[in-house]
Amino acid sequence: MPGTTPQPTSTARTRSWWGWGWADAHPDDAECTALGALIPGTLAHPLPVPRVRDLDIRRPAVEPPAGLAHLVGADPADRAAHAMGKAYRDIVRALRGRPGRIPDLVARPTDERGVADLLDWAGERQVAVVPYGGGSSVSGGVEYRGDAHRAVLSLDLTAMDRVLEVDAVGRAARIQAGALGPGLEDQLRPHGLTLRHFPQSFEFSTLGGWLATRAGGHYATGRTHIDDFVQSLRVVTPAGTSASWRLPASGAGPSPDRLFLGSEGALGIITEAWVRLQERPAHKASASLAFGDFHAALAAVRALAQSDLCPANCRLLDAGEAALSGASRDGSAVLVLGFESADAPVTARLAQAVDLARSHGGRPSAGPAGAAAAGGTEGGNCDAAVSAWRSAFLRMPYLRDGLARMGAVAETFETAATWDRIPGLIEAVRKEVGEAALKGSGHPATVNCRLTHVYPDGAAPYFTVLAAGRPGDEVAFWDDLKAVAGDVLHRHRATITHHHAVGRDHRPGYDLQRPDPFALALRAAKGALDPRGILNPGVLVD
Amino acid sequence: MPGTTPQPTSTARTRSWWGWGWADAHPDDAECTALGALIPGTLAHPLPVPRVRDLDIRRPAVEPPAGLAHLVGADPADRAAHAMGKAYRDIVRALRGRPGRIPDLVARPTDERGVADLLDWAGERQVAVVPYGGGSSVSGGVEYRGDAHRAVLSLDLTAMDRVLEVDAVGRAARIQAGALGPGLEDQLRPHGLTLRHFPQSFEFSTLGGWLATRAGGHYATGRTHIDDFVQSLRVVTPAGTSASWRLPASGAGPSPDRLFLGSEGALGIITEAWVRLQERPAHKASASLAFGDFHAALAAVRALAQSDLCPANCRLLDAGEAALSGASRDGSAVLVLGFESADAPVTARLAQAVDLARSHGGRPSAGPAGAAAAGGTEGGNCDAAVSAWRSAFLRMPYLRDGLARMGAVAETFETAATWDRIPGLIEAVRKEVGEAALKGSGHPATVNCRLTHVYPDGAAPYFTVLAAGRPGDEVAFWDDLKAVAGDVLHRHRATITHHHAVGRDHRPGYDLQRPDPFALALRAAKGALDPRGILNPGVLVD
Repeated sequence: MPGTTPQPTSTARTRSWWGWGWADAHPDDAECTALGALIPGTLAHPLPVPRVRDLDIRRPAVEPPAGLAHLVGADPADRAAHAMGKAYRDIVRALRGRPGRIPDLVARPTDERGVADLLDWAGERQVAVVPYGGGSSVSGGVEYRGDAHRAVLSLDLTAMDRVLEVDAVGRAARIQAGALGPGLEDQLRPHGLTLRHFPQSFEFSTLGGWLATRAGGHYATGRTHIDDFVQSLRVVTPAGTSASWRLPASGAGPSPDRLFLGSEGALGIITEAWVRLQERPAHKASASLAFGDFHAALAAVRALAQSDLCPANCRLLDAGEAALSGASRDGSAVLVLGFESADAPVTARLAQAVDLARSHGGRPSAGPAGAAAAGGTEGGNCDAAVSAWRSAFLRMPYLRDGLARMGAVAETFETAATWDRIPGLIEAVRKEVGEAALKGSGHPATVNCRLTHVYPDGAAPYFTVLAAGRPGDEVAFWDDLKAVAGDVLHRHRATITHHHAVGRDHRPGYDLQRPDPFALALRAAKGALDPRGILNPGVLVD
Repeated sequence: MPGTTPQPTSTARTRSWWGWGWADAHPDDAECTALGALIPGTLAHPLPVPRVRDLDIRRPAVEPPAGLAHLVGADPADRAAHAMGKAYRDIVRALRGRPGRIPDLVARPTDERGVADLLDWAGERQVAVVPYGGGSSVSGGVEYRGDAHRAVLSLDLTAMDRVLEVDAVGRAARIQAGALGPGLEDQLRPHGLTLRHFPQSFEFSTLGGWLATRAGGHYATGRTHIDDFVQSLRVVTPAGTSASWRLPASGAGPSPDRLFLGSEGALGIITEAWVRLQERPAHKASASLAFGDFHAALAAVRALAQSDLCPANCRLLDAGEAALSGASRDGSAVLVLGFESADAPVTARLAQAVDLARSHGGRPSAGPAGAAAAGGTEGGNCDAAVSAWRSAFLRMPYLRDGLARMGAVAETFETAATWDRIPGLIEAVRKEVGEAALKGSGHPATVNCRLTHVYPDGAAPYFTVLAAGRPGDEVAFWDDLKAVAGDVLHRHRATITHHHAVGRDHRPGYDLQRPDPFALALRAAKGALDPRGILNPGVLVD
């Protein structure tokens, strides 16, 4: 049965084997139909919810290892749930009854010894090992493609989900890699501490997944990447276990942790980490501003990013994105600002930020944000545009799956570039991906943009594509659009991914971006740590 | 002649071939004698200033490459000046007429092509290439030890010292690796921008050296490591040139730049970097507080590091260090606080920080800092303790050389550890190194400590050792003390170096600290990039 994945903090809700998140949160047929009606050229009726029993799931090509049998299962539904991540193309493949290769076995080790033993066994049998955290990859990171291995083992870490130690003095904790976001925070809460790392996938992704993919939190400025929270890592590799020391900083050679951060399971299995924590914020305030001119809004955001103000949230939604999320209905771009502190009130900083944005042409919204901007309210106040956007943010992946059932293309991709390239990059993505979608489907497409993270030297644009699909040919159609997008990113020297990882879907763009000598070094490192090539084959290096 | 190294911003001052910095800034014989009198058991008269003509410098073992002869020299004084860095043990070896191996040739390429051609030539002839920035290494990073190569080439990058491009919008610049600190800042100043990276060696170290050694700036909190300022790198390796993209952030695989940061010339020669800049700070304020109890001061510093205040300077000097620098004469520890901003006045933040330190038992000094703490003055005000400490800070390496001439041991080393380990670590270093010095020299030694950098999760203690030497045997004596220190660091899981790099002197501690699988990966990466093993042999991997 799906849902056998341990969910330490969940109620009895069931995870969807084929779509995002909880099965009971998916839009029903009527909602799907209503969604589809918003996009010209989609189906009249939703595709049926796919069923595991309709899949052709073969017997495992290998027997589970004898001494480790208690850690390994071969339940067909469990195997199906571990076949892919949750990208749009994964959802469509499930809807069309053509999922990625179903793993032969699913293992759920409960300690590091189990992980090491499973790797030893897999190395001897030439079994590919695909690490699986929460399974929320949107770049083909948790599936097997190819046929060079005798069998495929999905290594599900979610039974290793404990906070093992808390250092309250230095605000750090030792946490097992399989801890999902909510369970991790639940265990830290009694200590008054938080990792404060909230990717959109928070409910359905793990610490180990964040580390292996260099995840970005949803905070806009300051330390938001999981990379910066790492004190030390333990990583099981076929060549032994790597354990770095807990250090606040070190200049002793290239950082060992930075080699494993972003290694996507290709160099080893991250089993635990000491991570830096923070006190829970006691002071919060937010506001939003509307901009008639997107370029003026970009200038405002850049000024904010280059100031000392350090907003926790500084998201710019273009007009289309603002309309889609309900944050604006008059064609304005919307800037969502938020401040947080564990130490001191933040209304003064919010007011300064609002002033700075106003000086670039922003119009503060009339809601509670106005009060906040005037230095008034405090403690989680939140204006209407902010609320609208937050709700839409969390609901978005479910709606995407609903649209997929209507035969629509509904997907996102993200990147980052320096400020000088941002305007041209956004314009080119909108134009070229929009044209390709029109040409491919015969219907006009929507290509929206928001900035999710801002830096003094650049920003991370996040694009949403909504278009009619090509019935029965959705995957190839999306792959075409993604290739167009990848080409634009490459021409503008924008990264193939800011926080979604490379996986298998981004390999072409990654191979273009990665310096050749670094590729040589990485391949050599892989050869040294994984000489039999069993770890997440096809990811990062061949 | 020494001093042929291009010094774009210097006057005609001459660099010392054997000691720190400028030859004319060294203490004279009388000052050396007065310094020596402060340490029981030192010599009555200073050792003479060493002369190049007294060294036995042999003919180069190889001819300069024909097509590259204009880049390569074999002047004996120039070769002697490139034989070692500037650690205490290097100074003593020069004083005793036994410097490290004199390189056969010194090359000063003027562009990347020259660097690549020199590496090609060196690879064919089995010539070791030791990259040389400002030559300020204090860990044996720029000398050759061993005899596995036909000859040794010192690759001096300081002719590549230009700021090539400035992006004022995104506040970044493309800078050649050989730029020394002052020249780099001089070229940025007309743009109103600064790299704001000021290691103690600032005058005598280069951007490339900072990058290759993961240098720490002198700012106490926030972004201070050069690592965080890197947008992209160009690195010439024997396997080709690695060029990463300029990006504000990326999640595409392990960071290529982070592999080369800290690689100390063992993986390639960094030739240029795009680095993040800041506006020059317009607002400054500083203060100091005295603490009768060092542990109370530690608690104050931790509270500051864990607050939102983000002081630019937050140095804690123990009683001995405070007395030595003239910051205190009553046996108090002294906390030096400084705030800076390009945006807004900082007196309020300084006042909050002073209040926080007072709540842990700190007594604000009576000087201008009192005014600053009360929210009064602004713009570079600086109390007496702060001034005293700053002057001592910059003069310290020259005094160290003067003490070395008196046969004294005068050296520093630094580390970093999490807060839970800091008190025990400092105590153990003081005790064990002090006892070893007493035992080895028969005279009591001084072991002082300051915290140079503070983090929410830990701090970087920096130790000063002043002791009588063992005449004629200074190097072995210091190596013994350093081994004792290294053992204490290892037992306390404190890094072998926070910002002085590994070089050759820290290899034993580094090898203990580095996770074995990471060593395998690094060795494999080295093999891929430097298959003939010519790049800074003996550094990081064998």
